[in-house]
This record gives sequence, C-alpha cells and structure tokens, in this order.
Amino acid sequence: MERHFHEEMKTLKQKLFQMGLMVEGAIEKAVRALQERSEKAVQEVAEDERIINRLEIEIDEKGHTLLALVQPMASDLRLITMVLKINTDLERMGDHAVNIAEKCQYLFGQPPLKIDFPIADMAEDTQKMVRDALDCFMNENVDLARKVLQSDDKIDDYNDKLYLDMAALMEKDPSSVRRALCYLVIGRNLERIADLANNIAEDTVYLKQGKEVRHHFEEK
Amino acid sequence: MERHFHEEMKTLKQKLFQMGLMVEGAIEKAVRALQERSEKAVQEVAEDERIINRLEIEIDEKGHTLLALVQPMASDLRLITMVLKINTDLERMGDHAVNIAEKCQYLFGQPPLKIDFPIADMAEDTQKMVRDALDCFMNENVDLARKVLQSDDKIDDYNDKLYLDMAALMEKDPSSVRRALCYLVIGRNLERIADLANNIAEDTVYLKQGKEVRHHFEEK
Repeated sequence: MERHFHEEMKTLKQKLFQMGLMVEGAIEKAVRALQERSEKAVQEVAEDERIINRLEIEIDEKGHTLLALVQPMASDLRLITMVLKINTDLERMGDHAVNIAEKCQYLFGQPPLKIDFPIADMAEDTQKMVRDALDCFMNENVDLARKVLQSDDKIDDYNDKLYLDMAALMEKDPSSVRRALCYLVIGRNLERIADLANNIAEDTVYLKQGKEVRHHFEEK
Repeated sequence: MERHFHEEMKTLKQKLFQMGLMVEGAIEKAVRALQERSEKAVQEVAEDERIINRLEIEIDEKGHTLLALVQPMASDLRLITMVLKINTDLERMGDHAVNIAEKCQYLFGQPPLKIDFPIADMAEDTQKMVRDALDCFMNENVDLARKVLQSDDKIDDYNDKLYLDMAALMEKDPSSVRRALCYLVIGRNLERIADLANNIAEDTVYLKQGKEVRHHFEEK
C-alpha cells in the first residue's frame, strides 16, 4: 500500500507538471501575441485554456481519489492538498493568459502605441517565475523557491512603474487612453500570474520546512 | 469516532463562517471608506486583514488535522478540501478589501471626482453576493448558490460599464486620469471579490449535487 501510494503520488505530481507546462505555454503565447501582433497566438491561448480546464478537473479528481484511498501521513496529506491548491492556482494563471490575449485582440485593431516601458522584459521575467515556481515545487528546491519569492518584488515594481507611465501618457495624450488601459490590464494580469507563482514558492518552502512563510510581511 | 468527526467538522465550518463574517465586515468598511471618505474605516480594514490572515492559518491547520485524524468518506473529504479552498478564497477577498482601502486613501487627498456611475450599488451588490455565498455554503442551499452564480454576471456588467465610463472621462478630462484609475482599481477589486464568491457558490453546488459546474461556459 505504502509503495502503491508513492507511485500514485508521483503520477499526480507529473500530471500537475504537465499542466504547469501547458500554462507556461499559454503565457508564452499570450506574450508572443502582444509582441508580434499575432492573431494566431491569441487563438492558441484560447485552445490551451480549454485543455488546462480539463486538466484541472482531472487533477482535482485524482487528488481526491488519492486522499480517499489511503490513510496518508501528515506530510503526505499536506503534499496532496498542496497539489490541489497549486492546481487551482495554475488554472487561474491560464485565465490571466486569456485576459492578456483578449486585450491584445483589441490592440491589433488600433495603431501601435509607442511606449518606453519594457513590457517584454516584464513578461519574460514573469514567465521565468512560473517556470522556476513549478521546478521548485517538483524538486522541493527551497533555494529556488526563495529566488522566486524575491522575483515577485521585481514584478510588483514593474507594475507600479507601468501604472505611473501609463497615467502620465494618458494625461498628456487623451487619444492614448484606451490603448494605455489595455497595457495596464496586461501588466496587472502579469502581476497576478507572478503572485500565483509566488504562492507556489511559498507552499514549497512551507512543505519542505514545515514553516509558515505566508503573511511574512505582517510579521516583519 | 464518527460522532467525534462530525462535531469537529461542525466546529471547522463555524470557524470558517466566523472568518467569512470578518471578511464581509472588511469589505463593508472598505466601501464605507470610499463613500464617507473615512480614514478611520481604512485603518479598520488593515486591522481586520491581520485577524483574517491569522484565521486563515488556524483554519488551514484545523482542516489538515481533521484530514489526518480520520479516514473520512469521499463526501467528507470533499467537504474538508472545500473548506480549505474557501478559506484561501476568503483570505484573498480580505486582500481585495485592503486594495480598495488603499485607493480610497489616495482619493482622500484629491478633490472629489464627480461620476454618474453607481459605485455604491455595485459595492452593495458585491457585499450581498459574499453574504449569500457564505450562507449557501453553510446551509448547503443550492437554490441560493444558483442566485449567487447569476449575480456574478451583474457585477461583470457593472465593471464593463465602469471601464467605458472612466475611459470616456479620461479622454474628455485629462485632470481626472489618476482619480478615474483609482475607481477602475476599486471596481476591479469588487469584481474579483464577486468572482471569489462565485467560486464558493460553484463549490456548494458541486458538493451538494456531485456535479461539475466549473468551466460551465465552455460547455455552453
């Protein structure tokens, strides 16, 4: 039974990894849609989301079956409930990728907005956070998890700067308002994706060290 | 053991209800802060958030203890993992209340922005959704859950209208840009709270009917 449990657990984690890769891909396509003004990439994000939604249900059911089948130890329980939580977080990342793609579609119908803000860098750093968050959870790598937690501040800084840049642009040039708002929505969705990656990293640290790192700012 | 489990489960649900009431209160205060330009209400939201964060950890631990102590039936398992999920959703609602309060604080330092948009109605409808979502979960009331699911569209409509109104205002009057952006952030946070209430209602239907209502739009 013990052996069986660990094999099933491994399969569950692999399924979660597969879902993580799909989500990573969806984010990458959403960003590509923006950079290359690619209608095709927008469609691909929508297709990815449908697969992600199905995977979420599948993982949720497998996780619950596993909880019901075995009487796991406390640490195994944590691992399963964490897989269930990360599963939800990944699915939400997929939703954010869809939101980004939708705003791209609006932008495609408009003249390009010239902005200095490095949106491509912000997007790449966010993608990297997702990849690292997934890796740190899969390999229970606490050092990598801490790196992810630090990156989150960087994404927040990007987003704060984007907010100020776009506000200044809209004040100066009213014809930019609707396109600048799209960039704000895109930035905020990237920031939300980074937050969710951050959650995964926090969970990994907690799982590995049995220590509560959530709400850490409060205790500072 | 069976009897003991059900008593513990009842305690856990009551603790979740208590947390839900705190979150409802935080949202109510954030909305009051906006309407009455009340600095005191802003401070109260911040205090509430600290209590909410502590409650989240407490419920999470109690839920895991309960999972580990008993070998529950599949339906009990679902109930516990759902409590864990709703716990996370409620804590996020608390974060959104804080976001609203922060934008209020910016607005207090500015001349009031005259807008036609019924932000108070949107806020009240969102609060009602949270209250109903909590009630429907506590009492496993599927009819009320369906009412919550319908209300979510209304909040989305509010938010779409707010977006268009604020975009038009910013185009017309560049001096309104920063305040209008605050209203957009406030509207979006209300909409996110409504989404999370929607999740709780979906979970309740699923729990009660053993039916997958998530991703329902996809299947339409």
